[in-house]
Amino acid sequence: MSKTKVGIINVTGYVGVELARLLCRHPYIELTSITGRSAAGQKIARVFPNLACLDMTIESALGDIDLVFSAMPHGESAAEIVPLLNAGKRVIDMSGDFRLKDAAEWQQWYGHAHPFPQMIAKAVYGIPELHAEEIRRTQLIANPGCYATGAILALAPAAKAGIIESDIIVDSKSGVSGAGRTLKLTSHFCEVDEDVCAYSVDGHRLMPEIVQEIGLLSSGGNPKITFMPHLIPMSRGILSTCYATIKPGTAGGNAREFVKNLYREFYADKPLVKVVEDPPHTKHVQGSNYTLIYPTVDLRTGKLIVLSVIDNLGKGAAGQAVQNMNVMLGLPETAGVDAPAMYP
Amino acid sequence: MSKTKVGIINVTGYVGVELARLLCRHPYIELTSITGRSAAGQKIARVFPNLACLDMTIESALGDIDLVFSAMPHGESAAEIVPLLNAGKRVIDMSGDFRLKDAAEWQQWYGHAHPFPQMIAKAVYGIPELHAEEIRRTQLIANPGCYATGAILALAPAAKAGIIESDIIVDSKSGVSGAGRTLKLTSHFCEVDEDVCAYSVDGHRLMPEIVQEIGLLSSGGNPKITFMPHLIPMSRGILSTCYATIKPGTAGGNAREFVKNLYREFYADKPLVKVVEDPPHTKHVQGSNYTLIYPTVDLRTGKLIVLSVIDNLGKGAAGQAVQNMNVMLGLPETAGVDAPAMYP
Amino acid sequence: MSKTKVGIINVTGYVGVELARLLCRHPYIELTSITGRSAAGQKIARVFPNLACLDMTIESALGDIDLVFSAMPHGESAAEIVPLLNAGKRVIDMSGDFRLKDAAEWQQWYGHAHPFPQMIAKAVYGIPELHAEEIRRTQLIANPGCYATGAILALAPAAKAGIIESDIIVDSKSGVSGAGRTLKLTSHFCEVDEDVCAYSVDGHRLMPEIVQEIGLLSSGGNPKITFMPHLIPMSRGILSTCYATIKPGTAGGNAREFVKNLYREFYADKPLVKVVEDPPHTKHVQGSNYTLIYPTVDLRTGKLIVLSVIDNLGKGAAGQAVQNMNVMLGLPETAGVDAPAMYP
Amino acid sequence: MSKTKVGIINVTGYVGVELARLLCRHPYIELTSITGRSAAGQKIARVFPNLACLDMTIESALGDIDLVFSAMPHGESAAEIVPLLNAGKRVIDMSGDFRLKDAAEWQQWYGHAHPFPQMIAKAVYGIPELHAEEIRRTQLIANPGCYATGAILALAPAAKAGIIESDIIVDSKSGVSGAGRTLKLTSHFCEVDEDVCAYSVDGHRLMPEIVQEIGLLSSGGNPKITFMPHLIPMSRGILSTCYATIKPGTAGGNAREFVKNLYREFYADKPLVKVVEDPPHTKHVQGSNYTLIYPTVDLRTGKLIVLSVIDNLGKGAAGQAVQNMNVMLGLPETAGVDAPAMYP
Repeated sequence: MSKTKVGIINVTGYVGVELARLLCRHPYIELTSITGRSAAGQKIARVFPNLACLDMTIESALGDIDLVFSAMPHGESAAEIVPLLNAGKRVIDMSGDFRLKDAAEWQQWYGHAHPFPQMIAKAVYGIPELHAEEIRRTQLIANPGCYATGAILALAPAAKAGIIESDIIVDSKSGVSGAGRTLKLTSHFCEVDEDVCAYSVDGHRLMPEIVQEIGLLSSGGNPKITFMPHLIPMSRGILSTCYATIKPGTAGGNAREFVKNLYREFYADKPLVKVVEDPPHTKHVQGSNYTLIYPTVDLRTGKLIVLSVIDNLGKGAAGQAVQNMNVMLGLPETAGVDAPAMYP
Repeated sequence: MSKTKVGIINVTGYVGVELARLLCRHPYIELTSITGRSAAGQKIARVFPNLACLDMTIESALGDIDLVFSAMPHGESAAEIVPLLNAGKRVIDMSGDFRLKDAAEWQQWYGHAHPFPQMIAKAVYGIPELHAEEIRRTQLIANPGCYATGAILALAPAAKAGIIESDIIVDSKSGVSGAGRTLKLTSHFCEVDEDVCAYSVDGHRLMPEIVQEIGLLSSGGNPKITFMPHLIPMSRGILSTCYATIKPGTAGGNAREFVKNLYREFYADKPLVKVVEDPPHTKHVQGSNYTLIYPTVDLRTGKLIVLSVIDNLGKGAAGQAVQNMNVMLGLPETAGVDAPAMYP
Repeated sequence: MSKTKVGIINVTGYVGVELARLLCRHPYIELTSITGRSAAGQKIARVFPNLACLDMTIESALGDIDLVFSAMPHGESAAEIVPLLNAGKRVIDMSGDFRLKDAAEWQQWYGHAHPFPQMIAKAVYGIPELHAEEIRRTQLIANPGCYATGAILALAPAAKAGIIESDIIVDSKSGVSGAGRTLKLTSHFCEVDEDVCAYSVDGHRLMPEIVQEIGLLSSGGNPKITFMPHLIPMSRGILSTCYATIKPGTAGGNAREFVKNLYREFYADKPLVKVVEDPPHTKHVQGSNYTLIYPTVDLRTGKLIVLSVIDNLGKGAAGQAVQNMNVMLGLPETAGVDAPAMYP
Repeated sequence: MSKTKVGIINVTGYVGVELARLLCRHPYIELTSITGRSAAGQKIARVFPNLACLDMTIESALGDIDLVFSAMPHGESAAEIVPLLNAGKRVIDMSGDFRLKDAAEWQQWYGHAHPFPQMIAKAVYGIPELHAEEIRRTQLIANPGCYATGAILALAPAAKAGIIESDIIVDSKSGVSGAGRTLKLTSHFCEVDEDVCAYSVDGHRLMPEIVQEIGLLSSGGNPKITFMPHLIPMSRGILSTCYATIKPGTAGGNAREFVKNLYREFYADKPLVKVVEDPPHTKHVQGSNYTLIYPTVDLRTGKLIVLSVIDNLGKGAAGQAVQNMNVMLGLPETAGVDAPAMYP
C-alpha cells in the first residue's frame, strides 16, 4: 500500500521546519513536497542545516500531495487552502483562519472580515483529546493556537466537571519561537535575553479560542477569561498558570486529591497528556508532543490552580498537527510524535 | 565630618556582594568591614573579581562600624543582630527574621519559634515609599523580601484607595539569583536554562509579608492573596503580574485612565518608582534600584492588572537596603542607588 | 528473533538519561534494566519527567542484560565493567577509563594508577567513522570524550592527508551539560549565564585523547596540540575551532576548494558526518547524533581552520555510544540515532 | 566653572544608549544634547525605560555642545564629524571611520574609498593605556573596535617585550550586542540562544586594527594575525583567547611567572586594567569599563596564552570612549567609569 503523500506550505518558518523535522521521520507517510517563497529553489539542508539528512528542494508551488499542512500566516492561509479543499485534499491549517466558529468574533481579533466565512463550519478545532471523533470525519482541521492548547487542556477537566466559577485567569509564559522567525525588535536577542515582560495586555487573539472551547465544555455558558501572555528568555515552551475559584461544596474534604483524581480520570486514555505528581517544567516537554498537567488547590484561598506545560512548536503547533493527521488518516495517534522530550 | 562606618555580615552571597558593589562607591558612607565564613582571610577581589577595584579583605568578625547590613540566612540573622542592637549599632537585616509582626505567623512559615519575639516590635518593615517616617526613627530595619517588594508596590495604590475586592492573585516571575548562591539542583544551569516552572506551589514564605502590608493599607482587613512564584532563565529581575477585581462603580468612565492617574499621584514624589506608559520589562531595571509599574484594566472582565518590575538584588534586596540606610541616616534618599539600569 | 537486552548503569546523570531517551525508542534493541544509586526504587518518569512515557523503575543492581552502557564517573567505571566483561557481556564505557592506550599517560591525567591496566588493550576507542572494523570485533568500547570527538573528527582528514604541520590549536566552546549534573559553583545558573570563560587552562584530560588519535592518523608521529576548553551559556553543544599551519606547497592553487574536497571525500560514506557549505552552528546538531564540519583556509596567514559542531550529549556521548552499539551488534549504523536536530 | 557640554549623535543604538547611561551620571560634564533619526521628538525615557530617570528629548539635530560622541554607523560617521571638527568641537568617533592609518587598507575592509582621507592623520586611536599622550593633544579620537580593544590589550605587553613570534591566533567570543540593535536573523533570539558559531570566517574588519596596533608595538614589523570571532548566547562581553609561540630562550626558567610579571608591570599604573590570578569571566566586567587579563604558558607546547575579558559596550565601546573623553579634557581618567561590574 502506498503511503499518503504529504506537503508543507511555507516550510521556512519555525512551524514549517518543525513539521518537516517530524514528517521526514514519520513511519507511515511520505513527505513529498515543501514550499517556501523566499527560499524556493534551495536545498532545505542548506537553509536549515538541522535537516542535513533531508535531501529535498524547497519549491515555489506544491507538488502532488494527498494532505497538506499550511504554515502560512494568519489571514493568508485561507486563500491557499480553499482551492486545495475544493480539489479534495485534506488540509491542516496552522494559522488562526478557521479556529473561531464566529466570523464576527474573528473579524474583531484579526482586524478584517473573514475571507471565507462559509468554510468556517467545515473546520474542526484540532485538539484530539477533545474532538477525536470530528477529526476523523473532517477534511479541514484548524490547528489550535499554542497558548490556547495549553490553557484548554489545563482547564478542560474542571470546566467539564462544573467545579469552577466562570471567572478564570490564565497567566502564560512563553518562549520566543511562538513569535515566529520574522524579524522584530521584540525577538532581538539582546531585548529578550535576561528579561521577562507581559505583552498584548489589551487583549491577545488566542484568548477567544480559549473562551470558545472552555465555553463548549461548560454547562453554564461562556466563561470570563483574563488571559495574559508573557515572553521569557527561552526558545521553546509554554507554561500556563490557570486560576479559578472552586465552587463552594464541590471539592469536598481533600480538595487537592479530588482535583487530581478528576484530572487523572479525564486524561486516563490520552497517551500524550500526563497528569504529573510535581509541578512541571517546560523543559520536560522540550521538542516533544507531550503535555504535562499539574492541578492543585490553594487551600487558604479556595482557588483551583492548574499548571500545564507544552512545547509551543510541539503540542502547541507541529506536534499536535501531526497527531491530528494521524487521527484523520486512521493511523496510530502517536505515530511519529511519541519521542520523549530532550533533556536537559 | 567623618563618614558613617558601614559593615556587611556575610558578604559572600549574592546579596552581600551586591551590597559591597553599591557601598564601595557610595558618596556619603565608608565601607569599613566585610565578613564571610567560608572566605575569611581572602581578598574580596579574588573571590569576586567584579570587585577588582576594591582592596578589602574578608574578615571572620566585624571591625569597628556604626551601621551594619546582615546578609545572614533566615533564622540565623537574628542572633547576629541582637548583640549589635544592644551595642547601639544601627542594623539593616536582609533576612526574613523581623519582617512579620506576628510571631505565630512567623513560626508557621519559618518552621520554628521566633528566637527573639520581644525584638519584633522594634523593627520597621523597610519600604521607604510606604514607611519613611518610621525608618527615620528606628534602629532596626527588616529589609523586605524581593517578591514582597514588587507585589506590595504594585498593589499599594489600589489597596489604599479601596478600589479592589480582597481576592487578589499575584503571579511572579523571578530570575535565579533570588535563590542564592548556595548549590541546589534547581539552580543548576542545565535545569533552569530553557525552562520555566512554578515552585513553592503549596505556599511561599514571602506571601504573608504581602498580606501584612496590603492589609495595613486596606481599610477592610486582610486581603486574600494567592501568590505563585515562577523561576525563569535569567539571573536578575522579578516581574509581578497582579490581578484583582475592581469594585463596581469605582473606576468610572475611563477605567484605565482612572487607575493610571491614581498610581501616578501615589508615586508622584517617589524618585525611585516610575509609573510607566508601556508594559515594563525586567531588563529596564537590571542592576538598578528602580521600580517600574504599569497599571491597567481588562475592560472585558473588569480586572485591575498591575505589572511591576524590580531587580531582585536591587530594589528587591541590596538597593532598597541602601535606600533604607540613606533615609535612616538622613542622607539624600537616592545617594549611591540612582544609577540607571544596565541595558541591554 | 528476540531483541538484544540492554542496560544502563547510572542512568541518573545527563549521559545516562540521554542514553535512556535514545534507547527507549530504538527499533532493534530492548532497554531492560536501568540502575542508579541515589534514585533506586523510583520510577524514572518521576525523576526525569521528560521520560513520562517510559514505565521503568530505577534499580540498585543490573537485571538480565546482553549489553550494557556504563555511565559511571571516571575512575569508578572500570570496576563495574570488568566483572561484566568476565561474564561475557558487551560493554560500552562512557567514562575515560579505557580511552588512553598508555597506562602511564592515563595515570598522569586521572591522578592515580590505572586499576586494570591489563584490560586496556581489549578496548576499542569508539569513533565509528575511524574504527568501525575494530568496533565490530570488540567486547569493550571506550566511548570517546565529547571534546575529543569534535576535535578528532575536525582534524582527521587533514592529519591523514599529511597536509598540516604538527603544531595545532584546538579552541573549543562547550555547553554546560558536559560538566554533568553534579552540583558545583561553576554550573550554577547565575555563574554561567551571561558569561564565557576558559577553564582547565593548565591542561584538560581530554587533550591526550586527541593527541593519541591524531597521532595514529599522522605519519610523522605525535602532534603538538594546544587545547583550550571554554564554557558558554547553553546546555548542549560543542563548537571546536581548530587551527593548523598548512604545509608549504600542499594545498595548491585554490586552497579552500582543495581542503573542502579533501574533507568531502573523507566523509563521503559516513552518514552522520556532514561537510557543510557554511560555518556551522551547534544549534544545527542539538539533540542529534550528527557532526557538521566546515574546513577553510585563512589565505592571508596560511592557516587551515576547521570548525566542527556536535551535541556533547549526542555525538559527544550517548548518541555515539548507541552508534557504537549498532556497529558492534551488526545493526544499521544509524538505527535510533538518525533523528534530525531540534531547531530552533 | 561651567561643565563641558556633551552631545551624542545617534543615541538610539546600543552604543548610544550606553553612552547616555554613563554620561548622565558623570560628575564633571553635562549631557546636553542627544540625537536620533528614528526616535526624534520622543522622550528618551519612553524609548529606553532603563533611563527612566533621565528627562531628555531625542532631537533631530545637535544642540549647543563642546564635545560630541558620534555613534553613527561605519561609513556614515565621518560626514557627520568633519563639520563639527571644522567648527572646533572635540569629537569621539565610535565608528571605524578613522581607526586605520592607511586609507587603502580602510577601503579594502569597508568596501569603498575613504571619504576624508586627509583627516585620517588627525585622529588618535583611542586606547588610553597605550596612547594617553596623543589623546591629551588631539581633537579627534577614533574609538577602537570592541574585539580590537580586547585583543590589543591582551597582546600589547608581549608584543612590546618582543617575546613572541609574529604568528598569532586570536579566538574571540562575543555577546550579541556587538552586532547592534538593527534587526538581522543572526541576532534573532531563537537563532542565537543555545548556540555558538564562528562568523566572518573569511576576514573581519576589526582584524586590521589589531595588526596595526600590535605592529606599532613590535619591533619586527607587522604580525601575522589569524582572527576568528564567535557569537555566543549572551548580551554583553568579549573573551579573547590569544595564542602565540614564545621565542626560544626568552621566558627562562619559570615561564608562567615570567609572563605574569611582565604583564603586571606593563599595567601597573593603569587603573582600569587588572592582571588577575585566575582565568577571568566576562561576567566579571559586565556593565563596567574594566579589562581583566590572564597570561599563562602552555608548558608542553611553548605557547603563550593570554585571556582578556571586556564588556563590549563598556571598555569595548562607550566606557572606553568616556575614558578617552576624560583624558582628552584633563579630567580624572576613571571619572564616571569606575563603577564595579554587575555580578551576577
